[in-house]
Amino acid sequence: MTRIPPDALIDFCTQVFSAAGVPAEVGRTVSDSLVYADLRGVESHGVLRMEIYLRRASEGMVDPQAAISIVQDGGATALVDGGNNFGAHVGRKALELGFARAAQHGIAGIGVRRSNHFGTAAYFAEAAAREGFGAIVVSNASQTMPPHGGLRPFIGTNPFALAFPTDNGVPFMLDMATSQVARGKIIAAAKRGEAIPAGWAIDAAGRPTTDAQAGLDGAVLPLGGAKGSGLSMGIDILSGVLTGAGFGPGVRNMYENWREPQDVGHFFILVDIARFAPLQLFTSRFAEYAALLKGEPRAAGFDEILYAGEYEHRLAEKRRTEGLDLPAAVVSDLEELGRRFGVPWPDERPADAAA
Amino acid sequence: MTRIPPDALIDFCTQVFSAAGVPAEVGRTVSDSLVYADLRGVESHGVLRMEIYLRRASEGMVDPQAAISIVQDGGATALVDGGNNFGAHVGRKALELGFARAAQHGIAGIGVRRSNHFGTAAYFAEAAAREGFGAIVVSNASQTMPPHGGLRPFIGTNPFALAFPTDNGVPFMLDMATSQVARGKIIAAAKRGEAIPAGWAIDAAGRPTTDAQAGLDGAVLPLGGAKGSGLSMGIDILSGVLTGAGFGPGVRNMYENWREPQDVGHFFILVDIARFAPLQLFTSRFAEYAALLKGEPRAAGFDEILYAGEYEHRLAEKRRTEGLDLPAAVVSDLEELGRRFGVPWPDERPADAAA
Repeated sequence: MTRIPPDALIDFCTQVFSAAGVPAEVGRTVSDSLVYADLRGVESHGVLRMEIYLRRASEGMVDPQAAISIVQDGGATALVDGGNNFGAHVGRKALELGFARAAQHGIAGIGVRRSNHFGTAAYFAEAAAREGFGAIVVSNASQTMPPHGGLRPFIGTNPFALAFPTDNGVPFMLDMATSQVARGKIIAAAKRGEAIPAGWAIDAAGRPTTDAQAGLDGAVLPLGGAKGSGLSMGIDILSGVLTGAGFGPGVRNMYENWREPQDVGHFFILVDIARFAPLQLFTSRFAEYAALLKGEPRAAGFDEILYAGEYEHRLAEKRRTEGLDLPAAVVSDLEELGRRFGVPWPDERPADAAA
Repeated sequence: MTRIPPDALIDFCTQVFSAAGVPAEVGRTVSDSLVYADLRGVESHGVLRMEIYLRRASEGMVDPQAAISIVQDGGATALVDGGNNFGAHVGRKALELGFARAAQHGIAGIGVRRSNHFGTAAYFAEAAAREGFGAIVVSNASQTMPPHGGLRPFIGTNPFALAFPTDNGVPFMLDMATSQVARGKIIAAAKRGEAIPAGWAIDAAGRPTTDAQAGLDGAVLPLGGAKGSGLSMGIDILSGVLTGAGFGPGVRNMYENWREPQDVGHFFILVDIARFAPLQLFTSRFAEYAALLKGEPRAAGFDEILYAGEYEHRLAEKRRTEGLDLPAAVVSDLEELGRRFGVPWPDERPADAAA
């Protein structure tokens, strides 16, 4: 493990993107999104994706220069064309449009097409909660799960995020994949050479497996069978069928398809809390809710009952203070990227330059 | 089993409500909602609830005369006070308000407080899809599930419904409880004297159980642990914390609390499809999606891969044509209600009067 200050890591990634010809604003948002995921313990969506993101761009599968445009504008609704730019950048721009529209109309629905993998949905949902909005953030993803009753990947592990502001600095934030577990966790386990628990995945022949690589060759399973399968499809409809982005096989795998852009779709729903209750009243009610929750008797092995997002927030705070530990394999890949693009790895800087 | 035409059952229930002093419009909506659930195989939310609904009203815990009012009106958003009327009626009125607002603004968010158990979320979501809207419908419910890390009921099995229009008469319609299974299914199993599968519930001491009554005395478990727990809490926040309805213990159990109204909250999000794509283009894309899905290789035991809502729709169509089979215990309870309110049970009508 190598411990690194998160800001230094964001700067490193931003400089690599810049050296690769990615505009500064785009590169910084993508870097911020990746390190955000690492901070929250969602390493599967963290800086280990730098290499594939850069390769998508260098192969012309992502266009970091592309303008983002509003295709249809209904005031409280808008359809955004991401121009095939990086997903985190497209998503951030769509989200900011949503902030303006929800502030004006009380609620906003922003659909996005021609985007790419946008990192963690939490990145956008947390930003919305910090602006005083309730937020639903969804995205489709390339095919990794069989539908209920199917044998091979047809739906993505399409994430569903739901966030609300609080008065304690820790937004309520559910960010869940519609799989039993996020596919990225299986990627991470394979990278670490570890086994995966039963029930996470089937192998290429449709058999249950605990081998991470076999699971990646096969398919992850939907959350609770028909429920997770239906929720994933509903997200595909909202993100893809409604927006004109890809859906089902139309969302291309960023690791395997080098002929076409991904054509990922997203959908953001933002609700201005203040249209229903003064923000302070809302957050005081939530504080009461959280206090009631924490006063409940606990199951064995639990020191505290947490609401969604608390665990990840605490981990992120700790890592912001103490630094982020990156596995040797990830550091080695990043150092290689740094050498390729002429950007020094933070550890290699002279001590006085790092200050 | 007694087979009965669904329309005759709706009429019977409506007449019973009417004889109990419930206004005709209110009684008809509630009856329609209950029979709708029976038609779709969700018997837990069907006419077996007639007795408890009537008892809530007769004990003054529900006010069927109450006016429904808009407390805050932001155009695309509105906060509705249900006046403690029946949930199906309150929900239907809020939904209709949502139709008007979403048609005008492209998206609408309608929050509801001071409502009651509103039946199946699908009842509203399907109506919205048939009007050409994409719909998210949620409601909180009284405490039946432990939170992740907890031992006793704190959250409800808060339903989440997501629906979209299609061009084949069968809307896409996910309607899922945030539990492994709906609590109503355990009620129904207990009523039938049947065991429940492991993983559905814990008993009063927190131990896994397959005894339906022990499960009812204990608690049903959230879908997939932390995910279902977080989703249920998110729905409680949207339905209760945001609207000013009850949340957590503030949503009272309609079977156990005879001192206070339930104070259930709901939230409806309606999206006008046409703001993103002409409805016909959207439904043709969906048809393509469904065709791709059905062309996928199937797991053993599946004759067809269904999208969410197809199974329930087919069952409802069959039952609309052939009649609805009600268990003897349910019929006996309804006949008793009929006698009490002077309404003849349909079976007892002369054949010529039933035509």
